[in-house]
Amino acid sequence: MFERLTLSVDAMGGDQAPSMVVEGISIALERLPDTRFLLFGDRAQLTPLLDLHPRAQQASEIRHTDDVVTDDEKAGVALRTGQNSSMRLAINAVGDGEAAGIISAGNTGALMAIAKFVLKSLPGIDRPAIGTYFPTLNGESVMLDLGANIECNAENLVQFAVMGEVFARNVLGLKNPSVGILNVGAEDLKGNDSVKQASTILQQSSLPIKFYGFVEGDDISAGTVDVVVTDGFTGNIALKTTEGTVKLFGHFLKEALSASPLAKLGAMLARPALKTFKMRVDPRRYNGAMFLGLNGICIKSHGGSDAFGFAHAIDVAIELISNDFNESIKNEYAQLSSDPGFSMKAVAG
Amino acid sequence: MFERLTLSVDAMGGDQAPSMVVEGISIALERLPDTRFLLFGDRAQLTPLLDLHPRAQQASEIRHTDDVVTDDEKAGVALRTGQNSSMRLAINAVGDGEAAGIISAGNTGALMAIAKFVLKSLPGIDRPAIGTYFPTLNGESVMLDLGANIECNAENLVQFAVMGEVFARNVLGLKNPSVGILNVGAEDLKGNDSVKQASTILQQSSLPIKFYGFVEGDDISAGTVDVVVTDGFTGNIALKTTEGTVKLFGHFLKEALSASPLAKLGAMLARPALKTFKMRVDPRRYNGAMFLGLNGICIKSHGGSDAFGFAHAIDVAIELISNDFNESIKNEYAQLSSDPGFSMKAVAG
Repeated sequence: MFERLTLSVDAMGGDQAPSMVVEGISIALERLPDTRFLLFGDRAQLTPLLDLHPRAQQASEIRHTDDVVTDDEKAGVALRTGQNSSMRLAINAVGDGEAAGIISAGNTGALMAIAKFVLKSLPGIDRPAIGTYFPTLNGESVMLDLGANIECNAENLVQFAVMGEVFARNVLGLKNPSVGILNVGAEDLKGNDSVKQASTILQQSSLPIKFYGFVEGDDISAGTVDVVVTDGFTGNIALKTTEGTVKLFGHFLKEALSASPLAKLGAMLARPALKTFKMRVDPRRYNGAMFLGLNGICIKSHGGSDAFGFAHAIDVAIELISNDFNESIKNEYAQLSSDPGFSMKAVAG
Repeated sequence: MFERLTLSVDAMGGDQAPSMVVEGISIALERLPDTRFLLFGDRAQLTPLLDLHPRAQQASEIRHTDDVVTDDEKAGVALRTGQNSSMRLAINAVGDGEAAGIISAGNTGALMAIAKFVLKSLPGIDRPAIGTYFPTLNGESVMLDLGANIECNAENLVQFAVMGEVFARNVLGLKNPSVGILNVGAEDLKGNDSVKQASTILQQSSLPIKFYGFVEGDDISAGTVDVVVTDGFTGNIALKTTEGTVKLFGHFLKEALSASPLAKLGAMLARPALKTFKMRVDPRRYNGAMFLGLNGICIKSHGGSDAFGFAHAIDVAIELISNDFNESIKNEYAQLSSDPGFSMKAVAG
């Protein structure tokens, strides 16, 4: 890219906003110094923060607004009444073409509702989904949906499969990524109607997807497939269960390594190794959930994120933009629609 | 108890059966030497194994059968045609009053179907559920359902809440255990209809349950509540996701601690501590899923379990029996039904 990439940021979303937002921008700029930021939020709070972070200051432009979407605001209310909220204005900047993508650590439901309203879905996508990278024994995979769609029918799941596959190919750089549907067993008869029908569609249709079949909860971390497809209820719980387990595991490890003088000495000697380990399972490194299927790049940072995590969410936005993710989805869908063998509705019957 | 406790065992269920079953019995007998076992399975295979484990030999009686339920057999088929299978005969022993409980590492669906048919549900329980202990930051909790009921309505979830609460009080020994429903957010508006309605019932009814409200995936390990209630689809995936995450975490830790000579030395010094840690997260220590709500104790061991894990499943059976778990559920339900304020159907209506 020859022109400078511009991102819009909801500076007021998140528990530690706006300070973690400004510091996060500063961290992200270390890696990608050419990025420009439009900061939507309270100028009185943002100005002194930018004074503390000259690198962020140089790359940012404040767009003042007093209004914010709160965490407990219902999505519909935020959509109707939050016309001047930092979140809404930040999304508008992408809709208007001023910014190539938007990052917010605010209210997830409101962010999805407003982003859908302003940016619209990509052609062929009924319902956008939330996806994220997942560390696995084999490297990295992507899982979607993580909470945008509480109930999903088979067609929704098939669309998630297509989006996830395009993502794995274009962003993760995998040649022929495998796709699995999360279920309670590998056999065809297991599960609810949605997963069974989606599996049938993916098996029978002419979609150019390497469909593995059903995967189970432990396959997520095992990296059995590159793309894990699930409904938003299950995906959200699987994601948060993983986070909780990592925390518990870390707590047990810490307790064990401080239980005796010998253990403490061992831990001291192994400190650099343990640090590497800790970094590897640090959830902040996986911060930045992607709203896939929207006609614009929108990234949701964890609400409790710190600056390090927010910087990672910015990285994710840049990665999607620089890999032309949305163009790829559009092209794939255009190709699919012109393929006489591809009709999900016909297969689903 | 003054008479010897008798357990029936499906000796042929599980990947490493029957050897791990016999060895598991031997391990369990170290802790509970007075237990007696009825071993259902192939005498030709079991006799030499018992010769190797004299402690198990002394405490066991072989009940020969050639027939087994295979892992890929459909539950309905196993129920109709497996009348002489080791699984069916082992369950019959509980139904006939010969044994106080049954343990099997075989086909879960078949085990549940046959156990429901032979033992029947407890009064007031429409659908038995699978539950397990879970390690948490606070100690231990119980989660149910883990896969017996793929789709659950609000009443099913409320019944799980009641059973889980009784379990936490009578088996975990907690005075006033808290109960939460697994969901994608803490707010009342989140989730599908079943969890929303179940939450309303538990909030409004006169059930003597300390209802916390909704919990999220990371609350499971955090121990936010003592009883986590969920449908079998979500619960199964949460459980297996936890298992997968523990494996991944362990793999990363091992890699880190063997990455440099210094790390290796540190790990050597900390070996006893790391061993304690490993034991603490060892999934075999949590082996033994409980079929709750049946008129008889039935424990499902993990199919891939080894002898150590199978012995733990035996422990779980003994724990439920010695705490009179089923009697407690029966009594609680009898009390609830006579309480004029308690009518789930009325509240749900």
